[in-house]
Amino acid sequence: MAANSFGNLFKMTTWGESHGPSIGVVIDGCPAGIPLTLDMIQYELAKRAPGQSHLTSPRKETDQAEILSGTFENLTTGAPIAISIRNCDSKPEHYEPIKDLLRPGHANFTHLNKYGRFDHRGGGRASARETACRVAAGAVAKALLAQESIRVLAYVQQIGTIIANPSKIDCEAIAKSPLFCPDEEAEHKMIELIVKTKEEGDSLGGAIAFCIEGVPIGLGDPVYEKLEANLAKAMLSIPASKGFEIGSGFQAIIMKGSEHNDLFIDNHSMKSNHSGGTLGGISTGQIIYGRVAFKPTSSIKKEQKTCTIEGKPATLKLPENSRHDPCVAIRAVPVVEAMAALVIADALLLNRSAQI
Amino acid sequence: MAANSFGNLFKMTTWGESHGPSIGVVIDGCPAGIPLTLDMIQYELAKRAPGQSHLTSPRKETDQAEILSGTFENLTTGAPIAISIRNCDSKPEHYEPIKDLLRPGHANFTHLNKYGRFDHRGGGRASARETACRVAAGAVAKALLAQESIRVLAYVQQIGTIIANPSKIDCEAIAKSPLFCPDEEAEHKMIELIVKTKEEGDSLGGAIAFCIEGVPIGLGDPVYEKLEANLAKAMLSIPASKGFEIGSGFQAIIMKGSEHNDLFIDNHSMKSNHSGGTLGGISTGQIIYGRVAFKPTSSIKKEQKTCTIEGKPATLKLPENSRHDPCVAIRAVPVVEAMAALVIADALLLNRSAQI
Amino acid sequence: MAANSFGNLFKMTTWGESHGPSIGVVIDGCPAGIPLTLDMIQYELAKRAPGQSHLTSPRKETDQAEILSGTFENLTTGAPIAISIRNCDSKPEHYEPIKDLLRPGHANFTHLNKYGRFDHRGGGRASARETACRVAAGAVAKALLAQESIRVLAYVQQIGTIIANPSKIDCEAIAKSPLFCPDEEAEHKMIELIVKTKEEGDSLGGAIAFCIEGVPIGLGDPVYEKLEANLAKAMLSIPASKGFEIGSGFQAIIMKGSEHNDLFIDNHSMKSNHSGGTLGGISTGQIIYGRVAFKPTSSIKKEQKTCTIEGKPATLKLPENSRHDPCVAIRAVPVVEAMAALVIADALLLNRSAQI
Amino acid sequence: MAANSFGNLFKMTTWGESHGPSIGVVIDGCPAGIPLTLDMIQYELAKRAPGQSHLTSPRKETDQAEILSGTFENLTTGAPIAISIRNCDSKPEHYEPIKDLLRPGHANFTHLNKYGRFDHRGGGRASARETACRVAAGAVAKALLAQESIRVLAYVQQIGTIIANPSKIDCEAIAKSPLFCPDEEAEHKMIELIVKTKEEGDSLGGAIAFCIEGVPIGLGDPVYEKLEANLAKAMLSIPASKGFEIGSGFQAIIMKGSEHNDLFIDNHSMKSNHSGGTLGGISTGQIIYGRVAFKPTSSIKKEQKTCTIEGKPATLKLPENSRHDPCVAIRAVPVVEAMAALVIADALLLNRSAQI
Repeated sequence: MAANSFGNLFKMTTWGESHGPSIGVVIDGCPAGIPLTLDMIQYELAKRAPGQSHLTSPRKETDQAEILSGTFENLTTGAPIAISIRNCDSKPEHYEPIKDLLRPGHANFTHLNKYGRFDHRGGGRASARETACRVAAGAVAKALLAQESIRVLAYVQQIGTIIANPSKIDCEAIAKSPLFCPDEEAEHKMIELIVKTKEEGDSLGGAIAFCIEGVPIGLGDPVYEKLEANLAKAMLSIPASKGFEIGSGFQAIIMKGSEHNDLFIDNHSMKSNHSGGTLGGISTGQIIYGRVAFKPTSSIKKEQKTCTIEGKPATLKLPENSRHDPCVAIRAVPVVEAMAALVIADALLLNRSAQI
Repeated sequence: MAANSFGNLFKMTTWGESHGPSIGVVIDGCPAGIPLTLDMIQYELAKRAPGQSHLTSPRKETDQAEILSGTFENLTTGAPIAISIRNCDSKPEHYEPIKDLLRPGHANFTHLNKYGRFDHRGGGRASARETACRVAAGAVAKALLAQESIRVLAYVQQIGTIIANPSKIDCEAIAKSPLFCPDEEAEHKMIELIVKTKEEGDSLGGAIAFCIEGVPIGLGDPVYEKLEANLAKAMLSIPASKGFEIGSGFQAIIMKGSEHNDLFIDNHSMKSNHSGGTLGGISTGQIIYGRVAFKPTSSIKKEQKTCTIEGKPATLKLPENSRHDPCVAIRAVPVVEAMAALVIADALLLNRSAQI
Repeated sequence: MAANSFGNLFKMTTWGESHGPSIGVVIDGCPAGIPLTLDMIQYELAKRAPGQSHLTSPRKETDQAEILSGTFENLTTGAPIAISIRNCDSKPEHYEPIKDLLRPGHANFTHLNKYGRFDHRGGGRASARETACRVAAGAVAKALLAQESIRVLAYVQQIGTIIANPSKIDCEAIAKSPLFCPDEEAEHKMIELIVKTKEEGDSLGGAIAFCIEGVPIGLGDPVYEKLEANLAKAMLSIPASKGFEIGSGFQAIIMKGSEHNDLFIDNHSMKSNHSGGTLGGISTGQIIYGRVAFKPTSSIKKEQKTCTIEGKPATLKLPENSRHDPCVAIRAVPVVEAMAALVIADALLLNRSAQI
Repeated sequence: MAANSFGNLFKMTTWGESHGPSIGVVIDGCPAGIPLTLDMIQYELAKRAPGQSHLTSPRKETDQAEILSGTFENLTTGAPIAISIRNCDSKPEHYEPIKDLLRPGHANFTHLNKYGRFDHRGGGRASARETACRVAAGAVAKALLAQESIRVLAYVQQIGTIIANPSKIDCEAIAKSPLFCPDEEAEHKMIELIVKTKEEGDSLGGAIAFCIEGVPIGLGDPVYEKLEANLAKAMLSIPASKGFEIGSGFQAIIMKGSEHNDLFIDNHSMKSNHSGGTLGGISTGQIIYGRVAFKPTSSIKKEQKTCTIEGKPATLKLPENSRHDPCVAIRAVPVVEAMAALVIADALLLNRSAQI
């Protein structure tokens, strides 16, 4: 049990606070012989990095990673892969004025109670900055999955009430959108909404869709380690997530068995995919897809009533220069991809022991 | 890593197939000194047992448990608590006619591919019969939680399009409903719908709501072991579940930060509880609540097109005497409670190490 | 973390007290497709069963196992394998007269302090009876190892000052000796010593040697999960064990590097095997061998000074009919084999993820 | 399962090769509120650092640690504590001439086979350099133990045939000896022996004794997680260790029960301590003590017959400037202390869940 680890055979352990010297991750259990370069990690980190447009946090972090161990001649060696990312643009002084206030929707309240103290100079472990480590580890997981022709994609499917209906979901369409939204029409409306909401000092919720292609039949386990159970845990561990669904998800509630059942065409394909790519917790060989719900960013410029750590009434007014995402869901896209990749990589290795 | 275990410090490991000699569970890590009797376990098992009304499966299992170890004079001793439940009413012959068919929505397809074989005499580990073990372990978890005045409740919140809006949620109202639905009006409509759908040879989806009261501030961990992440995993590990949400859940997508943030009244209470009882993965001391979506039962009496294990076209017609729930969500209620109790019990013990 | 589990991918979890209804084990993670019959388990249990000669405990337990799950047509299915053994000859009344006394060399003192209570009707979890479950699980591990032509052997190498020097170590020679000692001359002296010591109301220590043949190069991990580290843990978890060594063991202290180094003949064999079959924690393909030290049985007929639970002086005189082994090392032989088999089985599965 | 992690609740995960950019450790699960400074870590690292005298390796590493996360105002925060140590004096060129040779007693043979490749520029994960991370993590464990007045000590008890019989074992006596040997007379003989053996181009084995004072009754678990089992695993995971014993250890083989049993004086103390501080796997409140055997250093200046990676005969002659310890046991002293501290720290936290 290590609360800062994720995975069983393919396992990451992360460290670091938003405002400390560095954040980082150790990936343990990665098989030897997988092509892995710093560029592959940097490519993924670039997607998540803040400061890229007015639609995300203006914090400027180059997120330059350093591989500290585990590769030789651009191949993994079987040794733990440690990746460190120095913090360059933390601004502890921004937090000074609000250090004695409970922040609505934030974790300083619960941390303070759990640990008896809270390092007020930033969000600490509760900061979304921690997710950079997930993305770095996810890049390693993707390198493993690439060997098996498995591909993970995620995109913005909804912001506020604006829903994307992409005609096609592919890497290119997602990559060229500043919102990771492959439906241009929806994207424009989303941008308008974000700009407007930001001006109001408010924030927006959103939904991220993910799909995983090329997964062989057989990954996942029948009972407590169902593939969808691990995906659900992975997604609900992302800051600000409030819900998870796979396949038909919450729509399944109003469907009948005769509608929902995916009929077999032959012994490896089906007419529909309401199940979302798993049956009994084990992958069916169909596309695995689902959705993750994110709440609106808790940090807003609008003034909010709150109280001090001691419980006295107070008003929270974030400093003008404080830096927050108007919609956390957007930058969660590469994180959702990373977490999905980590779950599948782990399941892939675990499955090697299913039969003699 | 044991795919048939759940939990870290308070950990259960289960065994057994739907048609084997017995199913059972070992609960390891339960502290010594907790009052625990067979009656407490039997009380929970009774809720989940099949054959109680025409609204659930007619399989007759008394679900008589035997405590094999771990208690002395009705107190836990700190030793592993093993509970065995003999299978009394398995009917392997029911499965004989369909043993070479892929069953839509079922796990025999994925098991067969993963393990290279499938014991066709029943659902095996994929059968919902396994959930009796969860309920037995959940009874032990509840015994621990009772010592800390923590209470877990679940109820049927939706079946098909019929939504319950209970004015009050309590044990008594839930217990007296054959559907575990504390809203009488909705309950009547649900019963009508179930009867009608069953006559059509079809099945229904549903949603189960849960709430956990009395949880102290501080349970759960900040990153990968967030309390909601473990609840999500727990719920998505229940057969037929397709989605999970906590607090505002998927509704959070269309809310703004200024609406969603729960403002502090003082340093231990809040004006609202959109967060659903956790912030940053750690319990806030407010009620923890959420919802789980269940797909309609895959086994339906209606004829379905399918194919054989070898991939040849075939028709699946379940034997007239085959026994299935018209809506699996109903009997999932005590299972949702059990899984929630197990997550909280584990978090409670883990939290003992948060501070020196 | 479950204190009653052992292993990672190939994992056992045990339950049961010496005087409760049953003891048992769940083996989780065993690959599907391995031939496994009840006879194979019973064969191993028979070696460990008490009551076989005047050289071991007269407790009469048939140790009849029941497989509760996990096999179909005598092959493992990939589901957890549960094995239960009913207790038939527990005598709680034997413990009644001594229930308030601290027993020298025994665990009732530490259990009482750790858990705040102790079920005085027997040794509980501290009883060597628990080791029957290890042997049952070990039989399953051996079934897996047999598929890879790996064989585990153990024998009595020393009792008191009498040392065995077997000219040949094989199954047959070990099996035909009531002491599991393949050196007939030493065996006779050991029997004499045991009979004499038993008459004196005293007990003897001993050493068990083990060897594992056919292990491929590459099992084990470089750092904290070294193969010898897991063997050491396995052996020191056996009741009454006090020491472990691999290869040259404690003799290595007085050797020089030029003597100790095993020179390579070619790239898969060596001139000597001082290392005991591992280098850097990973198997070399040579025979893995070592030794485990056992203290003399703590329960002796001789009167001993002690004190009560409350700390008052007292005398401990075991009832005439109390049943104990004059030398616990003897019946530890099948347990050492089982633990070695479990360690190797786990390492075998883990090694499947070493390379892409 | 992470092969580069150690511990359950108090858990370390390490990274790094002997010749890469840095080695390091993440300590997860350390309670909040423990005083911890960089000096405390540096103090322990200094004991292990090479290059301090002609009795150890001349490699010059300052072993300057950097705390990357997990502390605030010199107190632990409950967040993972990451410590990085840059490699400053690795000499990959030393390994160039021998890169195609199998090295007797070394792990390049097994690594090559397990992972299909080996980074020949140094010992990689198999290098004793990795143990610096254990010592850094051990410093954190000691900080936790200090809060409970628990103290861990280790010293050189034997080198070759020279045995130390210290009249008193304390920090000061150990610290002032370059050999960590608190018996001055033995120390002088050991130094003579080391100098002579080094001149011969050979190396020496040794034994390290450890003792742990102030451990409360109740740490450890009854079956597979016995305190001595975890100590055994910890010690056998140290490079070059070949054996472990606790209390009477291998001497117990020739003792009788009436001699070995530690009689109770009252309900918290005993007349003797042959058990070495545990009964039934659980600490008794007496001093926990034992011994670890180390083989002679495998790297020796003497010429050795060997073969190439392809299996062709060859001669291994280490470069004159290659840097090795004449007796690895010496620098293992702080590592033994660290591993013991980590085991006790973990057991201390786990024990918080023993009772309700």
